[in-house]
Amino acid sequence: MRVVIINGPNLNLLGKREEGIYGSETFEDYLKKLIKDNPDITIEYFQSNIEGELITLIQNAEGNFNGIILNAAAYTHTSVGISDAVRAVSIPTIEVHISNTFSREDFRHKSFISPYAAGVIIGFGLKGYSLALEYFRN
Amino acid sequence: MRVVIINGPNLNLLGKREEGIYGSETFEDYLKKLIKDNPDITIEYFQSNIEGELITLIQNAEGNFNGIILNAAAYTHTSVGISDAVRAVSIPTIEVHISNTFSREDFRHKSFISPYAAGVIIGFGLKGYSLALEYFRN
Amino acid sequence: MRVVIINGPNLNLLGKREEGIYGSETFEDYLKKLIKDNPDITIEYFQSNIEGELITLIQNAEGNFNGIILNAAAYTHTSVGISDAVRAVSIPTIEVHISNTFSREDFRHKSFISPYAAGVIIGFGLKGYSLALEYFRN
Amino acid sequence: MRVVIINGPNLNLLGKREEGIYGSETFEDYLKKLIKDNPDITIEYFQSNIEGELITLIQNAEGNFNGIILNAAAYTHTSVGISDAVRAVSIPTIEVHISNTFSREDFRHKSFISPYAAGVIIGFGLKGYSLALEYFRN
Amino acid sequence: MRVVIINGPNLNLLGKREEGIYGSETFEDYLKKLIKDNPDITIEYFQSNIEGELITLIQNAEGNFNGIILNAAAYTHTSVGISDAVRAVSIPTIEVHISNTFSREDFRHKSFISPYAAGVIIGFGLKGYSLALEYFRN
Amino acid sequence: MRVVIINGPNLNLLGKREEGIYGSETFEDYLKKLIKDNPDITIEYFQSNIEGELITLIQNAEGNFNGIILNAAAYTHTSVGISDAVRAVSIPTIEVHISNTFSREDFRHKSFISPYAAGVIIGFGLKGYSLALEYFRN
Amino acid sequence: MRVVIINGPNLNLLGKREEGIYGSETFEDYLKKLIKDNPDITIEYFQSNIEGELITLIQNAEGNFNGIILNAAAYTHTSVGISDAVRAVSIPTIEVHISNTFSREDFRHKSFISPYAAGVIIGFGLKGYSLALEYFRN
Amino acid sequence: MRVVIINGPNLNLLGKREEGIYGSETFEDYLKKLIKDNPDITIEYFQSNIEGELITLIQNAEGNFNGIILNAAAYTHTSVGISDAVRAVSIPTIEVHISNTFSREDFRHKSFISPYAAGVIIGFGLKGYSLALEYFRN
Amino acid sequence: MRVVIINGPNLNLLGKREEGIYGSETFEDYLKKLIKDNPDITIEYFQSNIEGELITLIQNAEGNFNGIILNAAAYTHTSVGISDAVRAVSIPTIEVHISNTFSREDFRHKSFISPYAAGVIIGFGLKGYSLALEYFRN
Amino acid sequence: MRVVIINGPNLNLLGKREEGIYGSETFEDYLKKLIKDNPDITIEYFQSNIEGELITLIQNAEGNFNGIILNAAAYTHTSVGISDAVRAVSIPTIEVHISNTFSREDFRHKSFISPYAAGVIIGFGLKGYSLALEYFRN
Amino acid sequence: MRVVIINGPNLNLLGKREEGIYGSETFEDYLKKLIKDNPDITIEYFQSNIEGELITLIQNAEGNFNGIILNAAAYTHTSVGISDAVRAVSIPTIEVHISNTFSREDFRHKSFISPYAAGVIIGFGLKGYSLALEYFRN
Amino acid sequence: MRVVIINGPNLNLLGKREEGIYGSETFEDYLKKLIKDNPDITIEYFQSNIEGELITLIQNAEGNFNGIILNAAAYTHTSVGISDAVRAVSIPTIEVHISNTFSREDFRHKSFISPYAAGVIIGFGLKGYSLALEYFRN
Repeated sequence: MRVVIINGPNLNLLGKREEGIYGSETFEDYLKKLIKDNPDITIEYFQSNIEGELITLIQNAEGNFNGIILNAAAYTHTSVGISDAVRAVSIPTIEVHISNTFSREDFRHKSFISPYAAGVIIGFGLKGYSLALEYFRN
Repeated sequence: MRVVIINGPNLNLLGKREEGIYGSETFEDYLKKLIKDNPDITIEYFQSNIEGELITLIQNAEGNFNGIILNAAAYTHTSVGISDAVRAVSIPTIEVHISNTFSREDFRHKSFISPYAAGVIIGFGLKGYSLALEYFRN
Repeated sequence: MRVVIINGPNLNLLGKREEGIYGSETFEDYLKKLIKDNPDITIEYFQSNIEGELITLIQNAEGNFNGIILNAAAYTHTSVGISDAVRAVSIPTIEVHISNTFSREDFRHKSFISPYAAGVIIGFGLKGYSLALEYFRN
Repeated sequence: MRVVIINGPNLNLLGKREEGIYGSETFEDYLKKLIKDNPDITIEYFQSNIEGELITLIQNAEGNFNGIILNAAAYTHTSVGISDAVRAVSIPTIEVHISNTFSREDFRHKSFISPYAAGVIIGFGLKGYSLALEYFRN
Repeated sequence: MRVVIINGPNLNLLGKREEGIYGSETFEDYLKKLIKDNPDITIEYFQSNIEGELITLIQNAEGNFNGIILNAAAYTHTSVGISDAVRAVSIPTIEVHISNTFSREDFRHKSFISPYAAGVIIGFGLKGYSLALEYFRN
Repeated sequence: MRVVIINGPNLNLLGKREEGIYGSETFEDYLKKLIKDNPDITIEYFQSNIEGELITLIQNAEGNFNGIILNAAAYTHTSVGISDAVRAVSIPTIEVHISNTFSREDFRHKSFISPYAAGVIIGFGLKGYSLALEYFRN
Repeated sequence: MRVVIINGPNLNLLGKREEGIYGSETFEDYLKKLIKDNPDITIEYFQSNIEGELITLIQNAEGNFNGIILNAAAYTHTSVGISDAVRAVSIPTIEVHISNTFSREDFRHKSFISPYAAGVIIGFGLKGYSLALEYFRN
Repeated sequence: MRVVIINGPNLNLLGKREEGIYGSETFEDYLKKLIKDNPDITIEYFQSNIEGELITLIQNAEGNFNGIILNAAAYTHTSVGISDAVRAVSIPTIEVHISNTFSREDFRHKSFISPYAAGVIIGFGLKGYSLALEYFRN
Repeated sequence: MRVVIINGPNLNLLGKREEGIYGSETFEDYLKKLIKDNPDITIEYFQSNIEGELITLIQNAEGNFNGIILNAAAYTHTSVGISDAVRAVSIPTIEVHISNTFSREDFRHKSFISPYAAGVIIGFGLKGYSLALEYFRN
Repeated sequence: MRVVIINGPNLNLLGKREEGIYGSETFEDYLKKLIKDNPDITIEYFQSNIEGELITLIQNAEGNFNGIILNAAAYTHTSVGISDAVRAVSIPTIEVHISNTFSREDFRHKSFISPYAAGVIIGFGLKGYSLALEYFRN
Repeated sequence: MRVVIINGPNLNLLGKREEGIYGSETFEDYLKKLIKDNPDITIEYFQSNIEGELITLIQNAEGNFNGIILNAAAYTHTSVGISDAVRAVSIPTIEVHISNTFSREDFRHKSFISPYAAGVIIGFGLKGYSLALEYFRN
Repeated sequence: MRVVIINGPNLNLLGKREEGIYGSETFEDYLKKLIKDNPDITIEYFQSNIEGELITLIQNAEGNFNGIILNAAAYTHTSVGISDAVRAVSIPTIEVHISNTFSREDFRHKSFISPYAAGVIIGFGLKGYSLALEYFRN
């Protein structure tokens, strides 16, 4: 079982800024624990601020991984291109959001990705990535 | 750890009709497995077709349970009263939907409950309840 | 041939109030004539002011009746749950409205039930129930 | 009792094309049966693809018929002029649609005619014309 | 003079939760004072979380009371059925809201009941019920 | 000075029906007086229920008349084609409406013709045509 | 016959600025000609930039004049108060606009005054005031 | 206890026009009774048709009165400036409307003032001012 | 290979008016060149200002032609009937617009025909008809 | 170089109320410093709560000043008349807002003035007036 | 004659995935045929998943090519930046879409590019590129 | 004092194209003057057409600069990601637009950045950057 985690714009700041919304742990620290807690799953991780690079990462996942865990962050709400990529690949994508996007601004309530996701996990903090892995394990 | 699962209208038909959307397993059968797989958590289950009874069930959960797993089904999209109840109780509520509501009719994209949920899990089939339990275990 | 008539909220007041809109005949009086005029069809009748009870009545119709004549009244315009029940049962539902909902307030122009109805009959007064029966007879 | 049936654009194709939506019977064949089954009612029939001709047919019905059965087809959703004609004549108009317009595109959910119709019958196939006649007979 | 107070969903929690919005007094405590301060008016009180029960309570008020004080809470914003009941009875209904609904979420700005109310009192806390009684006294 | 009056759908019923809205004078009677009162202007008059014929009448006015008085009635609110014709001809068009369209249904508040009219006269009854002539005389 | 002309904000600039839209004649110059051309009608004229003063002018017209010619300019599109005043007085108001408001910005297409006007004249330049007088003469 | 009543545009016509909506009593007559019935409260009264004068009256109330009873009439629905003034002063404002604004035109359903009012009283006729005083007395 | 070109309202004015938008060539002149340049294709041409005649022309194309080139002009944006006809016939329709409808008024951005067209060609001037023929040739 | 500063409604309260939004300095104090810091520019200052007076102030600026610094406050979002005045005068207007209107209520995001302003400065506190002067100096 | 083809996100997957929508031919294979079939035109081809790279490619086309054939795919519906680039360069851009965007999701009906395109070709499959070349040849 | 200027897509074309909107000076030329005129401030300058690179530039500004002057151009109106970056960094961002975005297309009136900007300067041409520097100097 091989799973790739793809994080979108500004998630490189996780744990460094806006701790009130996103918590104080960096994704790199969290990732180490995640890998340790899931020794049966090979986990790779990419982050990019560039929409088109996220599209390419999703395209490349096919053939290399059994599933994608995608947190497209800000692009979630506006990107038709990432949505098209998710629909185009044949492996399943789990959409994850750290904060509860439904208790934030109206424009964060819309996701172009959700209709094509195998499942959506919202508002559990970093724990959401772990739940997504749990899904792939079963 | 005590968790209550509250299911809304028409979920009593689960596994009996519209198998294309909801699968062929009844909730009662699934519940047995869920209880068996989570011996460390006391799970109770209620279902009602009546909005006001769901409100009362949520109110009564406080003091009796550590958390709520709520699938309000059709009322998710229209009920201010259930949303108000979720906000009023101090224990956390995980919102679960079996099907991917975002790939269905537009009116199913809106949830009055999500802004007040501790987390939202959508589109994983009955597996979503299990992921919600996983959250409470941790 | 067995048909169930299910009437929604405030239709218990029929013939007692707002005669300008709904006429002066009670539904019970009309029902007697309907039964008498259609001796070849077994007709049962239920009324409830509670949305969830209407859902249960629709669910229970399956296996017991060949068709449903449904006037969900006020819930027509807001109830996803009744719409879901109509879609879930395999017997046909005829949607009936006594008054012409299209010549009243805008919010009465929308029906969540119509897309799943086998047919819709609007504005014929109580005569609409008779036309619906006529449909089931043929 | 004299009733005129007025059919709008593309209904001349009935039974010839798009049988999945409209069935395989031509209106002319159906009309013969309708006339035969209702010997006590004089039925005349007109069809036109032209909005203005439909307006004129409605205007001319007054004085010559006791009622109109109108299926304005595509013009239902856009024609203020046909709606104005229906309102202007003093004889009642029954609006009929063969398919369930509410389970099709959004623009077919709006009817300019319904607010002025004596009754609306939707989704019963060609049977709808027969139900409309039933109304006029009583 | 006989007046019935009908309270809707979650108002049974008054004084127990969300004191920042609704205050710390239970309705039962307040009611005692209200009855004591208005010895010339017979006051009865009902609360239900179920929309259809509220409809029935309003219907039953006719003939038994001179007026209704109605706080439909969450159903205010979505219930056509309660609005229809208010319109159907011939005794006057005063609509009361404890909090200022206009300084809360957008969906709380719309009331289906207000157009048919004899008067609307919003934002005065529990004092609003007292003002409504004052109106009936005069 | 030559002016053509072009009237749209249902205006052939003027003075015969809906006198509450349009008055009791037929357009033909009014036209006789108009011609008599304006001996210095050659007035021609056309009416059609067909949108496309109105387009053709407007096109043909160029070269034959100095101006157009147009009451497109119901087509005012929906016809891009009549609007295009008005814009295409080089002679001025005065738009006239007998009733006050702004105190009627919302869909009558929109005119596709007005932006291209040399002037708009609304709500003066048949007197509006006379005011339009007055404009052309000056 | 006594008629008052009431002009709204910025119309004191007429003929001095934006000649491309409003022409090069001042209203005072035009008024002299209007008075001279209509010796049988007593014409008074007021202009104000202040919404509330226009309301007062309309209120005061009752009892002193047989009719009002009102060009509320910018307030046309936003003033409920002027609209209320027009509706409150029992003498008729003719609404006039110099430019064609329908070929300008969208917000100029809406008039709060039109529904209560005895007639509306738009786009004829200053000539519109003369046509309005013509209406009052007849 | 000192309270100022501030009335907005066209309320100087109260009792003189549109009695069907507003009743037949002038505000001055009502005010005399109000003052007589509330000898323990000093009541002052201002009316203006000018939005900016209402803003100034609200500003000046601070320091001179314990509370404001404000019926901004037409400006209720459009004035950000009056709303800003209500929010800026530290004494409480009760918003009063004589007619039931919610059973009138849609644009009267919106109030810019309500979110900042200490309470809102709608549809009780002139009695609403008395209820507002009752609030200040307690 | 037989192709029919069907042009809608006001296209008979092509080359005669509004040359800034549509160019200075009449369609008849252009057609001659088109026929000459495509000797391998039989081309017929119809134009009508009447929506219903366009519907009939499309219906009649089936059986007589291999394809339709349709420029419905103004009816493009409002005609459900023409759209229904395009969908009903089994031969392919290419939708052509001479001007760039997307750089004109908003209401020209919507086409009821496009969803059912085999292809859409916009903004190439009369050249668009030639490109459509090119498609049919291949 | 002569510049006039025109401030709208409630800005006379600056520094006296709502210091959280607008700061604690009165405009009069700030103005003294501004005049002192810009000895090369003649600065005049007006404030009014009345929309129509602001219109007149803008009109009168022409011929007396080289430019206008306008903070129309609440009228910014609703006043067509002030916008018309800004457009009508030939000297440039700089629009200034003290608070960041874009981080406040939605209705403050719309400005009728901005499209005709020579420049817009938002959210810099009172410093915005100084930046506007800087623009005029260059 | 030199023409550049610029393809947007996910079009590198052409012929590899979602063949039901886009066909089974890769763009590279198609390009070879296109170049072979159009020996008189120099064709260059670029593809990028990154919006900003597409902007740069369009900017760089000026001076190097006589025209652009642009299929911006997903960015078509959201990118103001690509639209600005198309408008900024002086060589003509032909917009091409392989599938019929108008028979797909609503968000694909909007193109930010179309208003500035020299022409738009939609729904012809890969053949659309060939028609665009045909346009440039003439 | 160190300030970074970050320019978005197509601003590399400044002074080279569309001089009617943006003027004829290149940003590089302007920058030289700006640096010369502000010797007390260290100014760095970046431009990118890629949204994700702009996000990274904003992130990197923290710790290296005291403030950001950001003209995100086309991305202003659609980029949640840039807005998130502006909000995430703790140094202030001044938003600058060269042209008056409010007098251009509707989609340019919306800025995702403004709510989080320390100030917004619009429509002053390149002079806007200088005013922004002036703000940082103080």
